Amino acid sequence: HVSHLGSTHTAYAADYDPTLLETFVNKHPENDYLVSFDAYEFTSLCPKTGQPDFAKVYLSYIPTQNMVESKSLKLYLFSFRNHGDFHEDCMNIILNDLYQLMNPKYIEVLGLFTPRGGISIYPFVNRVNPEFETPELKELAFQRKVNVLNQLPQYKNFVR
Amino acid sequence: HVSHLGSTHTAYAADYDPTLLETFVNKHPENDYLVSFDAYEFTSLCPKTGQPDFAKVYLSYIPTQNMVESKSLKLYLFSFRNHGDFHEDCMNIILNDLYQLMNPKYIEVLGLFTPRGGISIYPFVNRVNPEFETPELKELAFQRKVNVLNQLPQYKNFVR
Amino acid sequence: HVSHLGSTHTAYAADYDPTLLETFVNKHPENDYLVSFDAYEFTSLCPKTGQPDFAKVYLSYIPTQNMVESKSLKLYLFSFRNHGDFHEDCMNIILNDLYQLMNPKYIEVLGLFTPRGGISIYPFVNRVNPEFETPELKELAFQRKVNVLNQLPQYKNFVR
Amino acid sequence: HVSHLGSTHTAYAADYDPTLLETFVNKHPENDYLVSFDAYEFTSLCPKTGQPDFAKVYLSYIPTQNMVESKSLKLYLFSFRNHGDFHEDCMNIILNDLYQLMNPKYIEVLGLFTPRGGISIYPFVNRVNPEFETPELKELAFQRKVNVLNQLPQYKNFVR
Amino acid sequence: HVSHLGSTHTAYAADYDPTLLETFVNKHPENDYLVSFDAYEFTSLCPKTGQPDFAKVYLSYIPTQNMVESKSLKLYLFSFRNHGDFHEDCMNIILNDLYQLMNPKYIEVLGLFTPRGGISIYPFVNRVNPEFETPELKELAFQRKVNVLNQLPQYKNFVR
Amino acid sequence: HVSHLGSTHTAYAADYDPTLLETFVNKHPENDYLVSFDAYEFTSLCPKTGQPDFAKVYLSYIPTQNMVESKSLKLYLFSFRNHGDFHEDCMNIILNDLYQLMNPKYIEVLGLFTPRGGISIYPFVNRVNPEFETPELKELAFQRKVNVLNQLPQYKNFVR
Amino acid sequence: HVSHLGSTHTAYAADYDPTLLETFVNKHPENDYLVSFDAYEFTSLCPKTGQPDFAKVYLSYIPTQNMVESKSLKLYLFSFRNHGDFHEDCMNIILNDLYQLMNPKYIEVLGLFTPRGGISIYPFVNRVNPEFETPELKELAFQRKVNVLNQLPQYKNFVR
Amino acid sequence: HVSHLGSTHTAYAADYDPTLLETFVNKHPENDYLVSFDAYEFTSLCPKTGQPDFAKVYLSYIPTQNMVESKSLKLYLFSFRNHGDFHEDCMNIILNDLYQLMNPKYIEVLGLFTPRGGISIYPFVNRVNPEFETPELKELAFQRKVNVLNQLPQYKNFVR
Amino acid sequence: HVSHLGSTHTAYAADYDPTLLETFVNKHPENDYLVSFDAYEFTSLCPKTGQPDFAKVYLSYIPTQNMVESKSLKLYLFSFRNHGDFHEDCMNIILNDLYQLMNPKYIEVLGLFTPRGGISIYPFVNRVNPEFETPELKELAFQRKVNVLNQLPQYKNFVR
Amino acid sequence: HVSHLGSTHTAYAADYDPTLLETFVNKHPENDYLVSFDAYEFTSLCPKTGQPDFAKVYLSYIPTQNMVESKSLKLYLFSFRNHGDFHEDCMNIILNDLYQLMNPKYIEVLGLFTPRGGISIYPFVNRVNPEFETPELKELAFQRKVNVLNQLPQYKNFVR
Ligand SMILES: [Ca+2]
Ligand SMILES: [Ca+2]
Ligand SMILES: [Ca+2]
Ligand SMILES: [Ca+2]
Ligand SMILES: [Ca+2]
Ligand SMILES: [Ca+2]
Ligand SMILES: [Ca+2]
Ligand SMILES: [Ca+2]
Ligand SMILES: [Ca+2]
Ligand SMILES: [Ca+2]
Ligand SMILES: [Ca+2]
Ligand SMILES: [Ca+2]
Ligand SMILES: [Ca+2]
Ligand SMILES: [Ca+2]
Ligand SMILES: [Ca+2]
Ligand SMILES: [Ca+2]
Repeated sequence: HVSHLGSTHTAYAADYDPTLLETFVNKHPENDYLVSFDAYEFTSLCPKTGQPDFAKVYLSYIPTQNMVESKSLKLYLFSFRNHGDFHEDCMNIILNDLYQLMNPKYIEVLGLFTPRGGISIYPFVNRVNPEFETPELKELAFQRKVNVLNQLPQYKNFVR
Repeated sequence: HVSHLGSTHTAYAADYDPTLLETFVNKHPENDYLVSFDAYEFTSLCPKTGQPDFAKVYLSYIPTQNMVESKSLKLYLFSFRNHGDFHEDCMNIILNDLYQLMNPKYIEVLGLFTPRGGISIYPFVNRVNPEFETPELKELAFQRKVNVLNQLPQYKNFVR
Repeated sequence: HVSHLGSTHTAYAADYDPTLLETFVNKHPENDYLVSFDAYEFTSLCPKTGQPDFAKVYLSYIPTQNMVESKSLKLYLFSFRNHGDFHEDCMNIILNDLYQLMNPKYIEVLGLFTPRGGISIYPFVNRVNPEFETPELKELAFQRKVNVLNQLPQYKNFVR
Repeated sequence: HVSHLGSTHTAYAADYDPTLLETFVNKHPENDYLVSFDAYEFTSLCPKTGQPDFAKVYLSYIPTQNMVESKSLKLYLFSFRNHGDFHEDCMNIILNDLYQLMNPKYIEVLGLFTPRGGISIYPFVNRVNPEFETPELKELAFQRKVNVLNQLPQYKNFVR
Repeated sequence: HVSHLGSTHTAYAADYDPTLLETFVNKHPENDYLVSFDAYEFTSLCPKTGQPDFAKVYLSYIPTQNMVESKSLKLYLFSFRNHGDFHEDCMNIILNDLYQLMNPKYIEVLGLFTPRGGISIYPFVNRVNPEFETPELKELAFQRKVNVLNQLPQYKNFVR
Repeated sequence: HVSHLGSTHTAYAADYDPTLLETFVNKHPENDYLVSFDAYEFTSLCPKTGQPDFAKVYLSYIPTQNMVESKSLKLYLFSFRNHGDFHEDCMNIILNDLYQLMNPKYIEVLGLFTPRGGISIYPFVNRVNPEFETPELKELAFQRKVNVLNQLPQYKNFVR
Repeated sequence: HVSHLGSTHTAYAADYDPTLLETFVNKHPENDYLVSFDAYEFTSLCPKTGQPDFAKVYLSYIPTQNMVESKSLKLYLFSFRNHGDFHEDCMNIILNDLYQLMNPKYIEVLGLFTPRGGISIYPFVNRVNPEFETPELKELAFQRKVNVLNQLPQYKNFVR
Repeated sequence: HVSHLGSTHTAYAADYDPTLLETFVNKHPENDYLVSFDAYEFTSLCPKTGQPDFAKVYLSYIPTQNMVESKSLKLYLFSFRNHGDFHEDCMNIILNDLYQLMNPKYIEVLGLFTPRGGISIYPFVNRVNPEFETPELKELAFQRKVNVLNQLPQYKNFVR
Repeated sequence: HVSHLGSTHTAYAADYDPTLLETFVNKHPENDYLVSFDAYEFTSLCPKTGQPDFAKVYLSYIPTQNMVESKSLKLYLFSFRNHGDFHEDCMNIILNDLYQLMNPKYIEVLGLFTPRGGISIYPFVNRVNPEFETPELKELAFQRKVNVLNQLPQYKNFVR
Repeated sequence: HVSHLGSTHTAYAADYDPTLLETFVNKHPENDYLVSFDAYEFTSLCPKTGQPDFAKVYLSYIPTQNMVESKSLKLYLFSFRNHGDFHEDCMNIILNDLYQLMNPKYIEVLGLFTPRGGISIYPFVNRVNPEFETPELKELAFQRKVNVLNQLPQYKNFVR
């Protein structure tokens, strides 16, 4: 499933393209394993004004059988470059695409967008897979909401 | 409901004006979705001395059907510029106005004011909507109080 | 009750004077509202050696009917300037005075003292008002103790 | 000349008012003495859009006979609050007013404005008084230009 | 000359377009005035691989009669978004375009690019206008080279 | 069991070698004691491209009878230098080897890898020993997952 | 019990000496009071190589009747200067000595040692006094373990 | 000349007292040696309002025969505690007293005062001793003025 | 001359190999252009003990006709991975190889090595090309030495 | 001349011992090469009170034929551990010993000592070798004095 890694001439998508995402097999399915990404070069367009927006995107999940390959994730995130959608929608779309790709036990996406007019927006979405739902995973999803709020004053440090 | 975004000549309110706030429809009402704002250019007047006060204001909520549009939020916050109210009252007024506007499941407002005479004041207000109250949302509101206290020594770093 | 704010010639107390504290009425008694102060210019004297000691003092409480006015709080804290008491005792005295003044639901005082001989001392006192005690407030007081310990290695950054 | 310090009810100007500035006599005119200010709560209006702008303003001078009184400086800077002028012009106006007030040997003004659309502007103006011009003061003015350029990547840390 | 500021629907260029730049008249031509910009959302494409590159771009100049208008500068920098050129070439092109636009006494451009394969590149170009060349401006250009080297280990902090 | 400490000529392994690990006896088995390591010089090879990867590795455990000796741990981690495995696999292998070596009550491994193409990967694995499983240790393992997610935006600061 | 404070010629112990510790009476035994110390100048010797080791030591406890006097604590910690013991043992010895001295409700010791060969060791020991054990104190001890793990990547910042 | 160091009961002066300063003999008069102090606990009173002011004071000099003893310097600085003088005057007085005490080749004093009303003041005074004046010492005094201006935006970080 | 960029399967050298370096033509030879690199993943072996050493390497030069291609630079630096030489020698070798490759007007190499036994080493080498020597370039080389010394206490922040 | 590196059982000196210093031959004597050390674990005793003092020591020199071997430097610095001398004297002794050992063109020593009673001392000594004196080396020595003064407010960050 991994075609991008090591390819000679990478093709960069002209617009949003979820088919860029590829997976590889999780060798440790017996663990409730965490994989996290810090993708600090996300950019998309404002659907109304066409103005570029910039964000750092933080992704995490607990895998089941398949895991997203990181170079394909990079190409997928780059495909938002000339795509127009609101901050909140972009983060939901990313969560949905990765959820569908990997069927993870748990997944979350946080976007830290740079300011416009002195105000920054930080959308956060997370989801527990009903197929694997446990009280612990529900508690995890709840605690993550609490902590995104707890860190709000610190986010500016992470996106400047 | 979104009239400010993209308008030619934005009119800046001369005094506090909650009618500036506008909403747009939440496309993901099935999620307990978090939206957070970092509004780092808040200024109001001291009701007694008339002296300008400055703060960073942090807003977060879990939406139901309507979400506050960010440019209208900017104009609304700017409308406090020549308005006189105590720090604690300003934060309560903002919470009340946004609560009435959006009918959110949960909402909170934190103000980090710059020092006067070597002392800074940091009011924090949050509210769970009784219409949507769950044990989890009550726990969220409680945990947020705990964490605002936990971060008190760090706030100075965020308002300097 | 607010006599200091706006007065022409403020009189600065020569020694510890709790009568300097003044209150104003809480307009939002229906909320479990948090008010926090960062008072970064506290100084007192060592009762044994007479040497000046310096601290940052962090105060927080949940109000009932009365709230401490911030300028009177400043004058009260300044009154420790030529007063001799141990670090631990100063923090307890401040808590006691504010508790008696405001009858708050919850109150806490944390002092971050600058080092002597390569060692800094950080006393922390908090109290739940038995009149308003709930399981949640007891949990708040406990969680705060946990978190003061959690932040111990970071305090030096806040007092340098 | 110092009327604001200790006055009961300070009047805050409704618009830009250089007559607010007051001086006191320099007791050390024999020294080439440096006095610097860090005024971190400057705000004015965009002359075109009416949008509030925010900056930290840094002022320094070498006094001759008169020195600006700091509370009057605060009131003067506050008077820009509802005044509309470009960033560059505001900084020039401040330099001109203080120059005229104090007749200093050297004076400079630096404004660090918060971003709009991902771009921040940092104007810097300085002037050597021809009445007191020396090769050393000319070198000082030159070296200061060099160093403002040197620190450009760091300014964002100071205005966040 | 300022057409973008306040326009209703800003058109974002599809590719590199120096005609987007606009000027306004310098009201203080008698001063050797410094104007600096911190443009922290620059992105272009690698001309070989098509991969997006990200940088913070720092621009400074000493104006003569015309000054670049900041919103037009933003649109101009955005026009590199889908344009392919090496890091070094992009910085030279920006310098050339602004030089031609404003005929400044002095101008410089510094690009702090994010890492690829553990290595970051930081090109720096500056130029003294022969029409206004003085020993002091030549010294300024030289000192700036020295200082860009001096700050090399710190740049990573500014681009993360 | 401790042969490396104090040896004259340390032999550095040419490839991954778990037999380098040595233990010493825990003198405080009655305590639920925490031992943590910050190994900030980890490097391995990408199994596909052969490119070196760099990480900071954080290890913690609660000992039973045997504890890993720190110099042998250093040699063991060095043995990954010319070994090719994915980030996620390296962290799992380290956890497995230390678990087998010490039979700890609890163990965890976190790897903070430096970015490739603007994306960093941070794998986290932890395990409770079934032989010593308690509700508290299970809660510990859960809380650690929560907190690794909470700190995701801060990791870049720790690996730069 | 306090003999060191104010003494003319302090005698510094040549080797580890727990009899240096002195106490004073807790005036607030009714409170579950926290006292914390940041002792950033700890040094001991490696028992094998004789090499000096350096650490920051963080101590906290909840007092009963007696509290450790801070100058005696300083002298006690200085007595490790020419004493040889492993990092883990030093921290346990300190905890044991203070526990025996004060009979506290709760006590903990954390040592942040500087690196050797690219690896730092951070031992953490805590203990609940069985005489005063409550569910809350047991929870405190557990939560502290969780949080020491949570802060592991940050410790390097505190010991550099 | 050193009477304070090691004395049993240090007497702390009730008001400004330059006779507290003591010296010891410089063993290295052949070197142009720099001695610098960072005195981060300075406090005095506003001569008009009586309000306490706080500063960090930085002192440096090149010795000739006598050097100020650091404990006597501490007592001397403490003697400003209940003394009223403007920021600028306090720094000049300190420079004058130390100059008279030591007859240094060069001396400077910088005070970083905490803010009042959003404005901080940073006075800087330096002096070359005419008895030892060289072109190099004059250049040193000049370069120091340049650099105090260069660091102005950073001072807030040092006084918070 | 650029063969690595875009190649399918990059070959990583087994030992130090200066033939990996490639150049491209400088399009702006008329400018005294600065190109700087921050290569933060350098590792080599100690020639005596075989222990891995880690450094951040900072490279800068002023080009003439040829410029080093950044991917080839990465491969070249990677080739030190299993090569044994002292810190000082490695930095000299890198300078020599790049000098020979590009014939630059000026070149410098700075290595910030991580600590061993509480001591870090920071070698700095620079060279002016006699073919292009000017007083200004000689001054540049001198000023750079001054500034490397000036920044010594800050380097630890850059290599942790 | 290098006997410590790789030795089995290092002997740690009981008191100050300059014979511990060893040299190796400089392979690049044709360069005016800078070698710098950051020795962040220095400790000595106060000659009056016997109290331990702690410092970070920064050493730099331009070599001629011999260079100090870093492990021998570590052992030499450790030999101050139980040696009593004033801060200023320790730094002079270190400079003298290294000067005599290596006969360098230039050498400097800076000590950043931790605070006592709220005051830190930072001695700085440097020397140009008369045998190799040039105008440039004299300027280097002068510029270094200027810059030690420039960085005074930052030193606290480096010694905490
Ligand atoms: Ca940042
Ligand atoms: Ca800050
Ligand atoms: Ca601080
Ligand atoms: Ca900041
Ligand atoms: Ca920032
Ligand atoms: Ca940053
Ligand atoms: Ca950074
Ligand atoms: Ca970092
Ligand atoms: Ca540190
Ligand atoms: Ca600070
Ligand atoms: Ca600050
Ligand atoms: Ca660091
Ligand atoms: Ca560090
Ligand atoms: Ca770092
Ligand atoms: Ca610090
Ligand atoms: Ca530090």
